[in-house]
Amino acid sequence: MTGDPARQERLRELNLGLVFRQVLAAEGPVSRTELAAATGLTRPTITRIVEELIAGRLVAETGATPDGRAGRPRVGLTLSRTGPAGLGLDIRTDGLAACVVDLAGTVRHLAFAPLADADAPAVLDRLALMATEAVAAAKAEGLSVVTATLAVPGPVDGGIVRTAPALGWRGVDAGALLRERIEGLATAVDNEANLAARAELHASRSVPEHFVYVSGGLDIGAGLIIGGRLMRGSHGWGGELGHVTVDPEGKPCRCGSRGCLQTYASLAAILGDEPVPADLTADAAVLAWADAGRPETLAALDAAASALGVALSGTLNLLDIDTVLLGGSFALLSSWLVSGVEAELAQRVLSAAWAPITVRPATLGPDAAAIGAALAVVDRVSADPAAWIAANR
Amino acid sequence: MTGDPARQERLRELNLGLVFRQVLAAEGPVSRTELAAATGLTRPTITRIVEELIAGRLVAETGATPDGRAGRPRVGLTLSRTGPAGLGLDIRTDGLAACVVDLAGTVRHLAFAPLADADAPAVLDRLALMATEAVAAAKAEGLSVVTATLAVPGPVDGGIVRTAPALGWRGVDAGALLRERIEGLATAVDNEANLAARAELHASRSVPEHFVYVSGGLDIGAGLIIGGRLMRGSHGWGGELGHVTVDPEGKPCRCGSRGCLQTYASLAAILGDEPVPADLTADAAVLAWADAGRPETLAALDAAASALGVALSGTLNLLDIDTVLLGGSFALLSSWLVSGVEAELAQRVLSAAWAPITVRPATLGPDAAAIGAALAVVDRVSADPAAWIAANR
Repeated sequence: MTGDPARQERLRELNLGLVFRQVLAAEGPVSRTELAAATGLTRPTITRIVEELIAGRLVAETGATPDGRAGRPRVGLTLSRTGPAGLGLDIRTDGLAACVVDLAGTVRHLAFAPLADADAPAVLDRLALMATEAVAAAKAEGLSVVTATLAVPGPVDGGIVRTAPALGWRGVDAGALLRERIEGLATAVDNEANLAARAELHASRSVPEHFVYVSGGLDIGAGLIIGGRLMRGSHGWGGELGHVTVDPEGKPCRCGSRGCLQTYASLAAILGDEPVPADLTADAAVLAWADAGRPETLAALDAAASALGVALSGTLNLLDIDTVLLGGSFALLSSWLVSGVEAELAQRVLSAAWAPITVRPATLGPDAAAIGAALAVVDRVSADPAAWIAANR
Repeated sequence: MTGDPARQERLRELNLGLVFRQVLAAEGPVSRTELAAATGLTRPTITRIVEELIAGRLVAETGATPDGRAGRPRVGLTLSRTGPAGLGLDIRTDGLAACVVDLAGTVRHLAFAPLADADAPAVLDRLALMATEAVAAAKAEGLSVVTATLAVPGPVDGGIVRTAPALGWRGVDAGALLRERIEGLATAVDNEANLAARAELHASRSVPEHFVYVSGGLDIGAGLIIGGRLMRGSHGWGGELGHVTVDPEGKPCRCGSRGCLQTYASLAAILGDEPVPADLTADAAVLAWADAGRPETLAALDAAASALGVALSGTLNLLDIDTVLLGGSFALLSSWLVSGVEAELAQRVLSAAWAPITVRPATLGPDAAAIGAALAVVDRVSADPAAWIAANR
């Protein structure tokens, strides 16, 4: 051991991070005694660190709660509801969403605006207004927004949206457009299906370590979670399930290929030429028609489910994943899709002969991507909580 | 620092591992001075550790080699050619292979036997004989075989071969059959495409961090390398490219599905009903017919290349990989396959519009899986070289 002050300070920061991540990972309130046991730090060190975390608005004390073992009340520690927060912005085909989550991942603010004009600067202008409102709303609840992450329906790297056919974007530097409009926050851009998958992973302790999240909408994307981590691929363009070939001789897709899953199972494909009533979203219209027994819609849903099953069977054969979460519009329509998807998987996945596959709706609904985008705050603060405390003193 | 002898001993072991892995990772001979610089250990510590590594037959001195910078000769250190070795056993559709590699991954022994009877105990009996011969041959070269790994054409977990249609195996406990017959070695069973991919990764410094290795033969499999590591999936059953659907309404596959890649691009599919001459392997026969311009063979190769391109486009869209290595029989036939595969990928992979994709033959030929299996020795010894030295004193 050395008395070198810089080194002592670094040690203090590392221990603070260690303790904070214990509170973050805990399923409920955790006691100082449990923190000492989990980290191997002494009780006085824990007491001092917890004081710092509370003063820094990262951790808060709960009221005295009954102790599971002895029935004695104890003071628990949880993530602060008034500390750092993350802002998620999502460009959906049915509109724009802004969402603020706190460190626990709880949604504290959610706003929605119609998408009038898909032109990138116009979209970002509108999102910047929503961001300003969201930051103010968060502040009114005692939260400090530190990250702003934008979800887009297409492959992204380094802030560049390579292509987002639903928006007509190609090679748009959304990262720069976002940075120019949003000051003082750490900004990032990511694929919406990736972010939604991350939100599902965070939302539920019952989600397995390996799953495919399928994001259904006017476009189809996927987020692949392998070993509890998002698989981005070599550039960050992974998960393009919508452009997996279902039938090599199939219908032309606007990507330039033929027979892509998109051409069978996107909302546009399921809708066909039928106009959507003005008071309904596209997926709600499909659901209403299906519930009313409209034959064209039922046939389109069957075709979509089969195509989805074929494309997913390739994914499962390659990646040895046994859980599929149907998200976005597919969650809303899941009662019309699950059995058709399951039938294809049972026939086409080699391991289905000896290992069961689960197909079920995702839990977070249409806001999953915005929530996943907002969760960037958790990564940022947990990587170096001491830095956050120092910057927000 | 403490004088506690157990702790000192552990520190010595950790440093020995650190130095050994530096020699392992170096592209050529490395000097003691370079090892000191790379590890941050003192020169006397390096000198002592290198002595131990040499006495333990893990590292050897090269003759004096010219120093790149000053032209002064220096003594280099390389991996020992007379130390631990790994045995790889491979059940191929054209026969059985046994292979011994040293720590550098150099093949030091390779034997082949026809596959007379695919019955699991009979196959393992034959392999056990080949293993005995290989261990003796290795010993004659001063090597000590420590691992024996079996490659099988199908998904494996915990030593159980779930299904290997080419052999007619289902639920075979190959791990137990191997352990019963091979004593004194650390045994394991793995999928042949996974092992071949690992061998390709080891063989060439020019191989990228992310690639798909396709193993062509009577069955088709794939090994997925992501970030320099093999992606096994949740149970170890990943990479089943042969059962990815190419056409949902296609020909029935013996797996119970329809339109699997296998039904278009396996050697059996390319051969059709044409009998293979007794003096040729199946892939050599296909190559000879193709070179002679036989129309049925050329059409079958075209169909195989297209189907392979369709199946691989799904893989690349999902995993954002941009290099494909054609291995096994596909390496031999690559001049007849590459352009057809490339054409499908260019059309069907979303990122192909802005990022190039490379398709090329794998480098190791039909013995890749046996070599990959034998490379288990590198993992085992590098994880704890001190343990190997202690056990082989």
